[in-house]
Amino acid sequence: MKALVLERVKQLSLRDVPLEEKVGEGDVRVKIKACGICGSDVHYYLHGRIGDFVVNGPMILGHEAAGVVVEVGAGVTHLKAGDLVCMEPGIPKAFSAETMQGMYNLDPGVFFWATPPDHGCLRESVVHPARFCFKLPSPLTAAEGAMVEPLAIGMEAAKQARLQGGDTVAIVGAGTIGVMCALSALASGASRVYIGDIMEEKLNVAAKIPEGETPVSPVIPINTKKTSLVEAVREQTDGRGVDVVIEASGSAAVYPDFFRTVRKGGRAVLVGMPNGAVPIEVPFLQGQGIRIYTVFRYCNVYPRAIALLAGGKIDLKPFISRTFPFEDSIAAYEYAAAGHPDTVKVMIEL
Amino acid sequence: MKALVLERVKQLSLRDVPLEEKVGEGDVRVKIKACGICGSDVHYYLHGRIGDFVVNGPMILGHEAAGVVVEVGAGVTHLKAGDLVCMEPGIPKAFSAETMQGMYNLDPGVFFWATPPDHGCLRESVVHPARFCFKLPSPLTAAEGAMVEPLAIGMEAAKQARLQGGDTVAIVGAGTIGVMCALSALASGASRVYIGDIMEEKLNVAAKIPEGETPVSPVIPINTKKTSLVEAVREQTDGRGVDVVIEASGSAAVYPDFFRTVRKGGRAVLVGMPNGAVPIEVPFLQGQGIRIYTVFRYCNVYPRAIALLAGGKIDLKPFISRTFPFEDSIAAYEYAAAGHPDTVKVMIEL
Amino acid sequence: MKALVLERVKQLSLRDVPLEEKVGEGDVRVKIKACGICGSDVHYYLHGRIGDFVVNGPMILGHEAAGVVVEVGAGVTHLKAGDLVCMEPGIPKAFSAETMQGMYNLDPGVFFWATPPDHGCLRESVVHPARFCFKLPSPLTAAEGAMVEPLAIGMEAAKQARLQGGDTVAIVGAGTIGVMCALSALASGASRVYIGDIMEEKLNVAAKIPEGETPVSPVIPINTKKTSLVEAVREQTDGRGVDVVIEASGSAAVYPDFFRTVRKGGRAVLVGMPNGAVPIEVPFLQGQGIRIYTVFRYCNVYPRAIALLAGGKIDLKPFISRTFPFEDSIAAYEYAAAGHPDTVKVMIEL
Amino acid sequence: MKALVLERVKQLSLRDVPLEEKVGEGDVRVKIKACGICGSDVHYYLHGRIGDFVVNGPMILGHEAAGVVVEVGAGVTHLKAGDLVCMEPGIPKAFSAETMQGMYNLDPGVFFWATPPDHGCLRESVVHPARFCFKLPSPLTAAEGAMVEPLAIGMEAAKQARLQGGDTVAIVGAGTIGVMCALSALASGASRVYIGDIMEEKLNVAAKIPEGETPVSPVIPINTKKTSLVEAVREQTDGRGVDVVIEASGSAAVYPDFFRTVRKGGRAVLVGMPNGAVPIEVPFLQGQGIRIYTVFRYCNVYPRAIALLAGGKIDLKPFISRTFPFEDSIAAYEYAAAGHPDTVKVMIEL
Repeated sequence: MKALVLERVKQLSLRDVPLEEKVGEGDVRVKIKACGICGSDVHYYLHGRIGDFVVNGPMILGHEAAGVVVEVGAGVTHLKAGDLVCMEPGIPKAFSAETMQGMYNLDPGVFFWATPPDHGCLRESVVHPARFCFKLPSPLTAAEGAMVEPLAIGMEAAKQARLQGGDTVAIVGAGTIGVMCALSALASGASRVYIGDIMEEKLNVAAKIPEGETPVSPVIPINTKKTSLVEAVREQTDGRGVDVVIEASGSAAVYPDFFRTVRKGGRAVLVGMPNGAVPIEVPFLQGQGIRIYTVFRYCNVYPRAIALLAGGKIDLKPFISRTFPFEDSIAAYEYAAAGHPDTVKVMIEL
Repeated sequence: MKALVLERVKQLSLRDVPLEEKVGEGDVRVKIKACGICGSDVHYYLHGRIGDFVVNGPMILGHEAAGVVVEVGAGVTHLKAGDLVCMEPGIPKAFSAETMQGMYNLDPGVFFWATPPDHGCLRESVVHPARFCFKLPSPLTAAEGAMVEPLAIGMEAAKQARLQGGDTVAIVGAGTIGVMCALSALASGASRVYIGDIMEEKLNVAAKIPEGETPVSPVIPINTKKTSLVEAVREQTDGRGVDVVIEASGSAAVYPDFFRTVRKGGRAVLVGMPNGAVPIEVPFLQGQGIRIYTVFRYCNVYPRAIALLAGGKIDLKPFISRTFPFEDSIAAYEYAAAGHPDTVKVMIEL
Repeated sequence: MKALVLERVKQLSLRDVPLEEKVGEGDVRVKIKACGICGSDVHYYLHGRIGDFVVNGPMILGHEAAGVVVEVGAGVTHLKAGDLVCMEPGIPKAFSAETMQGMYNLDPGVFFWATPPDHGCLRESVVHPARFCFKLPSPLTAAEGAMVEPLAIGMEAAKQARLQGGDTVAIVGAGTIGVMCALSALASGASRVYIGDIMEEKLNVAAKIPEGETPVSPVIPINTKKTSLVEAVREQTDGRGVDVVIEASGSAAVYPDFFRTVRKGGRAVLVGMPNGAVPIEVPFLQGQGIRIYTVFRYCNVYPRAIALLAGGKIDLKPFISRTFPFEDSIAAYEYAAAGHPDTVKVMIEL
Repeated sequence: MKALVLERVKQLSLRDVPLEEKVGEGDVRVKIKACGICGSDVHYYLHGRIGDFVVNGPMILGHEAAGVVVEVGAGVTHLKAGDLVCMEPGIPKAFSAETMQGMYNLDPGVFFWATPPDHGCLRESVVHPARFCFKLPSPLTAAEGAMVEPLAIGMEAAKQARLQGGDTVAIVGAGTIGVMCALSALASGASRVYIGDIMEEKLNVAAKIPEGETPVSPVIPINTKKTSLVEAVREQTDGRGVDVVIEASGSAAVYPDFFRTVRKGGRAVLVGMPNGAVPIEVPFLQGQGIRIYTVFRYCNVYPRAIALLAGGKIDLKPFISRTFPFEDSIAAYEYAAAGHPDTVKVMIEL
């Protein structure tokens, strides 16, 4: 079958691969219909590694995918041929300590698409455990289904934030992950989201988030080149700060101010992955009673994300910025690698 | 000043009362602009008592109110004359065990409007601690402000339900409280709300709840005269049941089936107050791993409710069913006491 | 191999069974050294069924066991031949919805020893997944290891109770499960445990629970034939009630008073399984803000129970009331079935 | 009355002060019997300030106290003259946002003994709200009562750690606070406590912590001058790490290694207050799923601490290292200021 292969750093080819996968018990074969490009895909393309994960041989890219079930293994009851599904890219070990405790995202033995040495899914078809394939109800499309993966990061952030109806939220960074966090927070109970970025184009995209017919928009973009996020947030919250702050930029530079956006007894959720250690003032955290949670991939949120999409509480369509056909996958990666601030998601359709 | 006084069972008069209240430190005087009629008001009017609370002398009714600040006591900083505010009707004891533990709604020493022996607020003005008065941002009206009180019950139910983004919810009872629970659940992260009632008119009102421009409505009304709620819910959730069920009817008759609507590991929230003990099958709860939470008034939810109203995530206007002027308060009570299934809230405006 | 077989209601035989089990990948073979008799074993012996679980053919009894590893399957790294282990009797399905959410005890597809149609472990050896075998550090014995299973019920109750250091606890019922709950609660942070029963002999056993060298005993036995548990608890807690109440008697008769032992905002944990529905006063629960949790078997508590045993915080030895050799298994069951109020656990040693 | 006054940096005097306090409604007058010396007292004595809190005039020191009620104000029902009580040194504002939410320790308007500009309690008597005075049941002494204050820090750490029965805990720092955390963690459900320090004398004191008659001590002291705490902990937990780690040293130098002691999905509690920002590796926290909680004073834990003392689960007597009479208060402070690694608490008795 054809697949997009990262041959080595900065060299992609769309070529035949000799993969032969059998549909075992509990598996389904899915014909891929859409596959998004993630920042990590681009990172492997440009740098050949992320932290300890090093690409040592040709690796198929892609882990944000949806497609149509074409073959169903023994014992699978909730799916049938023809179903449109999206897939969780990570499969933890059964009965690992982490899986048994309901935190399978932390299982060190996980198989994960396009994370070396595991191949990704930007290819004609994949065989996947049905347990990690989720039916997309009409009228959701394959492209929206592929975007459930990045949305799941936002949903995990909202889950970790222990959001309660009416919470105010500040988000640092209006990139793809920041936008997914904003969508998830609003759908999970936030009354208002302050989102900060230094790039006006990104803020313009974030400002598109609707939530019903509101007299005031629930998303307040803040250009942090011009205004301090802390000051903007404090001013709009009678000096108290927000209930929850989410770090979605991955920049170490935001940390000195970051926790000052939160109210006493509030929560901070760290999603972005800064390089190197960041400086944290412990006595300030203590005096404020701030709790810190982190996000690593996601756990048990796909059905939640799909339910919110199906019910219309989240609309991902405005954030599918550019679509390329499978044949132009390399061009799609080059476009994604170039970095366009007004682009949330580049999608490849098969 | 003029006030609506319950003189004795089934006898109301709108008359002068010799109340003289001084604005002390931390207090404000609020000119009442709108006051809703609650089921408990009607119950005192018709029966003179609710459980152990017995009306032994003339009592001013009303506890769902909003108005304009006309006088500000020493030490009050967050309010000024002219502000439109709504008020929490209950004032707990400072430093009671319950207050100190963040559950002031359970404080046995609470002062609460229109709960004997405490007078209510359906009168020209009240003096109230500023701490329990909440500014209503534009364009919210006094009538919407008065409805924050019943909404707060729904918000407390959503809070007790520990809602997580994407949760499915079933609500038993589509009366005022059921509708408030549905609005609160959707604004607090529910992806879908199944609401059951035996009266078609009530379900028609509940079906008015919008939530953005959704391809499918997030509220599914179920006429439980025709269909079992359990069966309807099981059918629409692949047999699993909902994440959360909320009892909002106060009927003991629903209990035999009630917990069967919930998935394994789900949560039940009891808001309605049934007469007498209800039968509960403990081994069923155990096998399902169901947790039970209860609602008694509300605690720390007014700011949340107002934030969701101000941000447009909740719209109360469709549920203000009838409005009477203050002069017609007795007629308003008679209308409310007659019981109209399509009426969510009767409002009195001053 | 020899096994204790329930041939039909009230008929046991200790006889050869033609079981031939292979040690697969991830499995170990364990030579059984000790096996306790549980109330459910006795119930199957006397009645042939528990609820929907019906014994339809010969079934080996026993699910509380410990033994020595004699054969180790491929891929097992944490155990080796010669290790003394105890075993969780239930093996959930991998990747079931319940398992993935960290509540594998609720998995409907679980295999569970001596629950029809699954054979139990009162036999010479068993093959079991190593993942569900837990090494017993010296100087713990096989008999103590076999008692980890009933202790795990108590540990699950303590976990569900969300115990916080210094909590006061009341337990209804001083049978085996009540005693296990008391041991677990004290080891998990309870400052004091009030335990009620109508049988003086059971209370005498419970009173043996030590916890360090305390000036006052942390366990207060209350004969509920003579004194109401509610009154005793209220009197000793300045009228407030305990933080947590645990139902461990399985008697429906305790319910009318049960929740009155708890303070405002307290928690109730239901462990006992009463026949039929029990009456519950919802408005009382609401006014008190009581939350209700349930126990069904246990989830992720074996390592915790063993750590507390190994560290000396729980001592099970005083509660191994009678020990029989394997050859006398039938006599052991007859003794257990006779019901001796001063007997916590009957143990069979191989 | 006589009081120990910090006249200016490094100058103490035991002299008459012209305080005249009236017993108001809800107050009691307490004759002080014992008052401990806290690190913060010593810090004010030596440096005249802690962070933003600056001693600008003569200030009475001391905030860890117990004594006998000698006068009872109107409305006080739970105390009477002659009662031995200990006192919470901080009195929050009634109805502050923090108090109403059950986190009164974070109230910025709190009055707190011996925190400028508020006088402390090392004097003949104090007038204090009865609500913040807690009766000490026999046979607890005034000195033990005075130690409830530092113990409350440990109890707050155990509370923030969300300890579950059987958790393993590592504590960094075996000073007074580290020891209080160890006592609290063990009494709150920990099965084992690894405690690290660079001073052998401090570890010897910590090793005195008993918990019942255990075959193995529940406290494992680790000299971190010789052995890395991370390695010691990993070795003793099969490489997994502990469930909870508590920072109780206040040293910034421990941070690079600190979080490596915790298992996946574990919790870190920050009690010590390091100077300046500390470096934290966010991606490591994310990959491990570690949650961070902080401690600032304490909230609603005094009754819990007293219950554990009264029940014998915590014994503070071994940690009252030196006792001085009131007349020798200055010598006591000089002794405390000299810093003796084998001294947990210096107590002054009146």
